[in-house]
Amino acid sequence: MLLYESGISGNCYKVRLLFAHLGVAYERREVDVFDRSDRAAILGALNPAQRVPTLVLGDGRALAESGAILHYFAEGTPYLPSERFERAQVLQWMFFEQYSHEPNIAVARFWAHAGITPAPAEAEAKRRGGVAALAAMNAHLARRTFFVGERYCIADIALYAYTHVAAEGGFDLAPYEAVREWVERVRRQPGHIPITA
Amino acid sequence: MLLYESGISGNCYKVRLLFAHLGVAYERREVDVFDRSDRAAILGALNPAQRVPTLVLGDGRALAESGAILHYFAEGTPYLPSERFERAQVLQWMFFEQYSHEPNIAVARFWAHAGITPAPAEAEAKRRGGVAALAAMNAHLARRTFFVGERYCIADIALYAYTHVAAEGGFDLAPYEAVREWVERVRRQPGHIPITA
Repeated sequence: MLLYESGISGNCYKVRLLFAHLGVAYERREVDVFDRSDRAAILGALNPAQRVPTLVLGDGRALAESGAILHYFAEGTPYLPSERFERAQVLQWMFFEQYSHEPNIAVARFWAHAGITPAPAEAEAKRRGGVAALAAMNAHLARRTFFVGERYCIADIALYAYTHVAAEGGFDLAPYEAVREWVERVRRQPGHIPITA
Repeated sequence: MLLYESGISGNCYKVRLLFAHLGVAYERREVDVFDRSDRAAILGALNPAQRVPTLVLGDGRALAESGAILHYFAEGTPYLPSERFERAQVLQWMFFEQYSHEPNIAVARFWAHAGITPAPAEAEAKRRGGVAALAAMNAHLARRTFFVGERYCIADIALYAYTHVAAEGGFDLAPYEAVREWVERVRRQPGHIPITA
């Protein structure tokens, strides 16, 4: 398999982290996330959104969107619950991550890495959205060890990716004790790899 | 079951549309999407994101995020493919919708309904993002009748919700012939209901 990805992207890290847990073998091809002028040429035929991660399976079929890739490979493994309502809760948190978390926390981090200074109103909107997402996570984790079913699964992987590097986008995790404890719990999972791996 | 929702919200319409196809019985409770000051009181204990749709099942358990609700109820029905890779493609399009489509096309429509005039740069970013999403859908549909496996499923429901009312946010579907034909195809599905139902 071939993973079109970026080392800095948390969305790509989610896939690498699950693959590390599962012992899945794959090749990596770095795609520039700052200069996107070659996106159509590289990914145009593989992914309508022309984003990374985009995965090409051994038989040539392509799959995109980190959430879809995680779900596909976790099915039938301990990283996706088998119980139907728990599986729905996993998707709830994964959609939450892509809609309410990533567009704030990941984008603020991207701006910092890219040296982009947003308009003050834009920066404030991201800060407010990111804080709301972290507060929602903290309230949920206050009475739980992991997001769903008290077991580590792809909902944790999806939320961990940008949460553990939130400081790079200016988000201080100090007020979110349950989130910080959960971050440590995720780090101690067998087969864990860091985002830099 | 009780659905906390909004008549104007395409995300809520997705759930109502699937429930209409499946003949699922439920009650509706309207939540204000313009004045959100009562959100924490109404949804705080049910949905960490405090957004609609939020569904309370017959046994009191709550499920949120339109994509998670659609997936939960479509499983085992003709509205979710049984083949594993097709299911992954369904999720790919549903995550695409929530990340690349809804934040542009739905938000532009919400601004129009709420009488909000965004900053020009903000409006232009939404326009550009929405046009890219529609172009991606059109290219995919040019050689297909539906998004996955040549059969109507929850990926179509998720994408139809805000696409068929895109004009309300200033998006003209005229250039996207394959999208317009697919919109008509979705409308002709047995059990279809309009967003106003």
